[in-house]
Amino acid sequence: MISVSVVKELQQVLGPIRAENKTIGFVATMGALHEGHQSLMKQAKQTCDILIVSIFVNPLQFGPNEDFDSYPRQLEQDKKITKSAGCDVLFHPKELDVYPDGPTQTIHVNQGASVLCGKSRPGHFDGVATVVLKLLSIVRPHKAFFGQKDAQQLAILKQLSKEFFLPVQIIGCPTVREKDGLAKSSRNMRLTRNERELAPKLYQALQEAADLSVYNVNELIAYVTTELQRIPVGEIDYVEAYEYPSLKPIQQPVGTVILALAYHFSDARLIDHILINYNRGDA
Amino acid sequence: MISVSVVKELQQVLGPIRAENKTIGFVATMGALHEGHQSLMKQAKQTCDILIVSIFVNPLQFGPNEDFDSYPRQLEQDKKITKSAGCDVLFHPKELDVYPDGPTQTIHVNQGASVLCGKSRPGHFDGVATVVLKLLSIVRPHKAFFGQKDAQQLAILKQLSKEFFLPVQIIGCPTVREKDGLAKSSRNMRLTRNERELAPKLYQALQEAADLSVYNVNELIAYVTTELQRIPVGEIDYVEAYEYPSLKPIQQPVGTVILALAYHFSDARLIDHILINYNRGDA
Repeated sequence: MISVSVVKELQQVLGPIRAENKTIGFVATMGALHEGHQSLMKQAKQTCDILIVSIFVNPLQFGPNEDFDSYPRQLEQDKKITKSAGCDVLFHPKELDVYPDGPTQTIHVNQGASVLCGKSRPGHFDGVATVVLKLLSIVRPHKAFFGQKDAQQLAILKQLSKEFFLPVQIIGCPTVREKDGLAKSSRNMRLTRNERELAPKLYQALQEAADLSVYNVNELIAYVTTELQRIPVGEIDYVEAYEYPSLKPIQQPVGTVILALAYHFSDARLIDHILINYNRGDA
Repeated sequence: MISVSVVKELQQVLGPIRAENKTIGFVATMGALHEGHQSLMKQAKQTCDILIVSIFVNPLQFGPNEDFDSYPRQLEQDKKITKSAGCDVLFHPKELDVYPDGPTQTIHVNQGASVLCGKSRPGHFDGVATVVLKLLSIVRPHKAFFGQKDAQQLAILKQLSKEFFLPVQIIGCPTVREKDGLAKSSRNMRLTRNERELAPKLYQALQEAADLSVYNVNELIAYVTTELQRIPVGEIDYVEAYEYPSLKPIQQPVGTVILALAYHFSDARLIDHILINYNRGDA
């Protein structure tokens, strides 16, 4: 595995790879790698000749009161994980490599960014879209793999690719979960033991709501809200439902709906969601 | 010359050209082509194997009270001009080709967009940067040619390319002028005969100011303002000076300064500028 931190160096490494017309798969991460990331890398390896992984904790997607400073950073451990996942090139740029002049021009997400996580994290998806466009432009992969876990991010990045005619396929990969159903996340390591025991209730509530087989999304939201209120620690950030992937308000109970939540534990805000398909026949 | 309006069609035309590793030169226009555009095409032809020209009147860069509807459109005449300039592929997309879902994600220019034309045209450079990123992404040229006449636009597009690591060289080409000094512009055709006679005074004022050889930009601005006030019709939009290409306020009289103006005639707002170099030895 080649490990580089400077854009120019990366281009030198990628030059011969591009010349050989090898398909490049790309996994963009903020490090603190876990099985969720490993599953993205695995899928990339299976469908591409070359796997490039980036590790960059992007300051632009953190709000002023968010956890940029305390976000877990563990490059040496991450290097071992990427290497054993078959990564060919690890790109771990510094802030000045990605934002040489500060963010003088950024992506503004006009659709799908004001709901769900966007409501409590203004500017977050602008920051995500900006850095992903930069990374895609630097790496120029054929396929880029993102977790379905970050469903809103995935929808926005697919739209980014469509909106700017990027010559890349954005591929969503299934959420990887712990045995008890908790979605894998770098932030899970910041849960207390008690919170870790309670955290699976987030996904349980979503599953139970989906199993109710009701078409009224307000009922679904009410059910999940009631279940989350039973958790003795932490508090609800949101429980919402929208059409997916457009993230528009639900007009009619047909098509795919995302039922999503965010929950604040003491030192970690966790998100999860479930997609529910309503067929025309159901309505 | 091949003429296409659909993105997919363009990609089919460009496929073999890319496969042959030919260098692609690109001139993005809003049509109503004049000698300024012809000079861009000429420079592209001289340095690239293939010349692609786009004609697209971009709604996103016009404000609600601007001249989007009345902007001159003359596709058939423009086709003749591009053909005789040696254009290989003319791309004239429809609005839905460029913005299939409306502008769901756009570029926001955080630096250099609030001065000069940006002050009276809020959102203008966001619209310019957004459409140019789209066009560059569709065409994927090696070199893209823009007029130095739109100096603020050129500076912002060079920064766009740098900020998003675009694999394209943004090349500024000298302003083409009428014999009497008036900068060529598609909007000149909307001047009355009287205005057309007076319009050369814009550039004359800039030249005279530059010839004063003073280091105090306030004096330069005052000189140009006084000269423009002598024009019996129309009114000044702005006369300003900044460091170039950063478009930051002038800190010290060293380096390149842009002295720029915009002037409203009855049915046409014209811009012009002059670049003044202050060497360390002058100060």
